[in-house]
Amino acid sequence: MRFDLAFIGFGTVGRGLADLLLEKREELKKYGMEWRVVAISDIKAGSILDDQGIDLREALKLAEARTSLEALPAQKKGLSAIETIRESSSNAIVEVTWTNIVDGEPGYSHIKTALSLGKHVVTTNKGPISLYYHELMKLADEKKVKLKFKGTVLSGTPTFNLFDGALAGCSVSSIRGIVNGTTNYILSEMEKGLDYKDALKEAQRLGYAEADPTMDVEGGDAVAKITILSNVLLGANIRPDMVKRKGISSITSEEVLSAKDCGERIKLIARAEKKGDFILAEVSPIPLPVSDPLANIMGVTNALTFETDCLGNITIVGPGAGRRATGYALLTDLISIANGK
Amino acid sequence: MRFDLAFIGFGTVGRGLADLLLEKREELKKYGMEWRVVAISDIKAGSILDDQGIDLREALKLAEARTSLEALPAQKKGLSAIETIRESSSNAIVEVTWTNIVDGEPGYSHIKTALSLGKHVVTTNKGPISLYYHELMKLADEKKVKLKFKGTVLSGTPTFNLFDGALAGCSVSSIRGIVNGTTNYILSEMEKGLDYKDALKEAQRLGYAEADPTMDVEGGDAVAKITILSNVLLGANIRPDMVKRKGISSITSEEVLSAKDCGERIKLIARAEKKGDFILAEVSPIPLPVSDPLANIMGVTNALTFETDCLGNITIVGPGAGRRATGYALLTDLISIANGK
Repeated sequence: MRFDLAFIGFGTVGRGLADLLLEKREELKKYGMEWRVVAISDIKAGSILDDQGIDLREALKLAEARTSLEALPAQKKGLSAIETIRESSSNAIVEVTWTNIVDGEPGYSHIKTALSLGKHVVTTNKGPISLYYHELMKLADEKKVKLKFKGTVLSGTPTFNLFDGALAGCSVSSIRGIVNGTTNYILSEMEKGLDYKDALKEAQRLGYAEADPTMDVEGGDAVAKITILSNVLLGANIRPDMVKRKGISSITSEEVLSAKDCGERIKLIARAEKKGDFILAEVSPIPLPVSDPLANIMGVTNALTFETDCLGNITIVGPGAGRRATGYALLTDLISIANGK
Repeated sequence: MRFDLAFIGFGTVGRGLADLLLEKREELKKYGMEWRVVAISDIKAGSILDDQGIDLREALKLAEARTSLEALPAQKKGLSAIETIRESSSNAIVEVTWTNIVDGEPGYSHIKTALSLGKHVVTTNKGPISLYYHELMKLADEKKVKLKFKGTVLSGTPTFNLFDGALAGCSVSSIRGIVNGTTNYILSEMEKGLDYKDALKEAQRLGYAEADPTMDVEGGDAVAKITILSNVLLGANIRPDMVKRKGISSITSEEVLSAKDCGERIKLIARAEKKGDFILAEVSPIPLPVSDPLANIMGVTNALTFETDCLGNITIVGPGAGRRATGYALLTDLISIANGK
């Protein structure tokens, strides 16, 4: 299959995909996938559209140098995201704008427009997927296109697709894990003696936490992820505001260190469980005995334990974020679309 | 796809698959899979063949009661395994006889005969796969049938198929893990104060270790598994006798406890690494710092860490054995064949 791609958003994640597309161009042919880029629209980097194809390597250089993409030759320049989706000859959209879990915008409109026009969508945007998963999947089905969002949870580490392929025929009754690297990093540092504020500052210095860390430290990001996991893997139909939530900002070094003295570690745990027809979903800091596999996940690493009927507990551990990992999540989504999955 | 199955071997693992086939008959239709059993041949339980189909539930009852299957009505009785493969109308063979890593027999002949006749094969038998992987895959390709062996490593826990589906496009440079539950159980018990002999006795009492525990405790089982992983995921072409091997039978409680005092745990680690054109593969007990995720895998649980180019380290943790888990491995192999994969 040949993808004519339009990037909506060209920040770290989009550029991570661009790196891999360029690096693995030949290898991708083995998976039946070829590509070119016909449009890029980014609120900071500018907007270019050319149905004959854009030089992705050059676009990447300009974006890295924080120079406008509009310096490149292109049929059209300066289009909005929605115009880019509508007017480009793209058959697949890479939606990688910012996450908003209140109303999902602008990602929600981008995805809906693309699907309505019969274009495939791959995204890492947790907003629209945590809020409108069922609606958007229905639209994709009607239009006979695919909506893939592997990168919304644990970046490229296999989660959802464990269960269509590798764990086919196996059903999941509960999910429990560490899905936010920023808070896990902060808690790991606090165990070394830092107080919350200094650990947060260190996380910000290293680029693990945003200038406004609310989404991470108050649990919003983890809530979006456990909502998506519940809706996709447990057959739930819940929204982020239905998930019980407690963050880590009120946790003191004393609590972390006294847990340590008792052979425990405080972790921000996201969990969801089927109880008959109900789903119990929650994000909260919990002291775990160090013998718990999740207690030993340190730093920005993420992990998820699935309780299954066929295999008991299966745990997967991998990077929770990162340009390359998240770019890779988008790439495998494209590969599965190319293979009709 | 409709499978007409012949079971070659009907011990714990084969019966584990039978349980799941019966339990999930309706659900399997969603995955495009239907089945009936046309033959069972087991060295202890007897041998029956009926092209019109065998009552699997009744066969299971007899086998559980250690009664000969030949009490059931059938067109033919008492055939050998090879005769059963040749004479049955089966289109897929479930090969679950015992593992022999010296010459792979009798599994090797069973699998070769089945593939030569154009029959698919699913197996959990580490002998033929660790010794003849490339040869058998070539034969399967020539005959346009599939040979699947997910259950040879970590039972149903996803390993190989992580990389055809969920991690497509990602390449693996090294593999490291705990792949033998028996030895991991023994080492876990020794940390509690038992000496090697008592820990082994306890493992035997619980059914984790065989009466002759050599294959497990001297590392042969782990060697077979790391050989298979190397050949399948690292593109190697090695045999079990090319893997450096040290078991755990000479490890003393003093060594285990003194490692513990240093914040370490001794684990039987199987590892394989690409070094240019060479593969370095080894099984040996290694003291790991408790901060290593593998150090915290206790009891009969197994775990594998894959070092990848796209995602850094990915670790998967799950059951290493068990009737249901291993039966499930065979079931997912059948599901993927039914889906042309």
